[in-house]
Amino acid sequence: MLSKNELKYIQSLCQKRQRQAEGLFVAEGAKLVGEMLNDGFPVRKIYAVEEWVRSNNTAKDVTVVTPAELERISIQQTPNQVIAIAEQQDPGPLPDLKGTLTLALDSIRDPGNLGTIIRIADWFGISNIIASNDTVELYNPKVIQSTMGSFLRVSTWYTQLEELLATAGVPVFGALLKGRSVYDVRKKNEGILLIGNESGGIDTALQRYITDPVTIPRIGGAESLNAAVATGIILSHLLT
Amino acid sequence: MLSKNELKYIQSLCQKRQRQAEGLFVAEGAKLVGEMLNDGFPVRKIYAVEEWVRSNNTAKDVTVVTPAELERISIQQTPNQVIAIAEQQDPGPLPDLKGTLTLALDSIRDPGNLGTIIRIADWFGISNIIASNDTVELYNPKVIQSTMGSFLRVSTWYTQLEELLATAGVPVFGALLKGRSVYDVRKKNEGILLIGNESGGIDTALQRYITDPVTIPRIGGAESLNAAVATGIILSHLLT
Repeated sequence: MLSKNELKYIQSLCQKRQRQAEGLFVAEGAKLVGEMLNDGFPVRKIYAVEEWVRSNNTAKDVTVVTPAELERISIQQTPNQVIAIAEQQDPGPLPDLKGTLTLALDSIRDPGNLGTIIRIADWFGISNIIASNDTVELYNPKVIQSTMGSFLRVSTWYTQLEELLATAGVPVFGALLKGRSVYDVRKKNEGILLIGNESGGIDTALQRYITDPVTIPRIGGAESLNAAVATGIILSHLLT
Repeated sequence: MLSKNELKYIQSLCQKRQRQAEGLFVAEGAKLVGEMLNDGFPVRKIYAVEEWVRSNNTAKDVTVVTPAELERISIQQTPNQVIAIAEQQDPGPLPDLKGTLTLALDSIRDPGNLGTIIRIADWFGISNIIASNDTVELYNPKVIQSTMGSFLRVSTWYTQLEELLATAGVPVFGALLKGRSVYDVRKKNEGILLIGNESGGIDTALQRYITDPVTIPRIGGAESLNAAVATGIILSHLLT
């Protein structure tokens, strides 16, 4: 049974300010929450329907809720058994850029895009994403859900990208209209792949740091590709 | 000025049943509507704010609305100047599969994914998409918006995919876990690329028609890639 205060509190975590003040975030669904528990992720509190509680053994603080209550605290269209409140992780100091491929995101605004990009990074074995300060927040519930659990394996930092790129000391790949065809780029083991904003592309101030401009050759009439799709295509060619 | 009846009518076109009964759909935004008008697309009615009307000359039936009225008929978070009601297009008989690459979609359910896939097809010069009957409807407003205008250049048919594949007479590529690496596939000018459902993948009944199973090699921990991202990656390699 959910008290009015608890309901209000969980709903308040939908707001970035409240999430940051509390250092917490919300994750939903039997699969995702199960994976977090298996990973030993610091889950503070669980709200679950009886069915979930019966088939999951956990030492965590669990409150049994009715499906109707779950629906009230869920952001999903079809709420799925369980919601966890967990602790935001500090990824620590910026990662070493040498000897590895890193994604840099310039002003990605759509939560679904950020989540999908984290999932792509995870698929391709990229562990580090460095985002501009105006990129959508990692702990936005829509970002967390669309990572499909990949946020557990990929770390995301927020920083001033220009400073980072200016002193990177590794190749910087960026998708520009006039670049080398990604089909002709040889396999890379080190560098930064810089991905631009959904509508504006890569900020002009950042473009000067691109050492290796690349292009996905266009055959048809679309003006652009979705940022996550472009990330997936370029990465698949950088890794071939 | 928008009458109550008009408001109700436009809102009713958010429902698939109503859209199909009327043979109409809704498209939003200065860029998209501008492209439709330039293309001579059969637009029936336009609702636009004064600013749009001042800078656009059209012989179409235009009703000037206030920004507040536009907001009431819009599905966008930030409504953009103009909404058009236009006629659904009948793509005609199924297209010829010989000598060209065709996308086949098995139960794509997310409107954003379908729209993004149409945009990817357009980028890569693929004109024909054939979707299973249970794929989300092309004229769903979220699909139309996420195509970013590409629905004007790519035709989408709905049919029974099993019949189509059984008599295709061209190679059928499909993403399966145990396939040939897409990195090793030679350039293709003919065939069907079959894309599976977001959570279930390609239906077992359809898998038997795949003549060329392909795989996007996974390096990291993600279980799968988003359907649209996978489409983009595979297409980029089939075309290289």
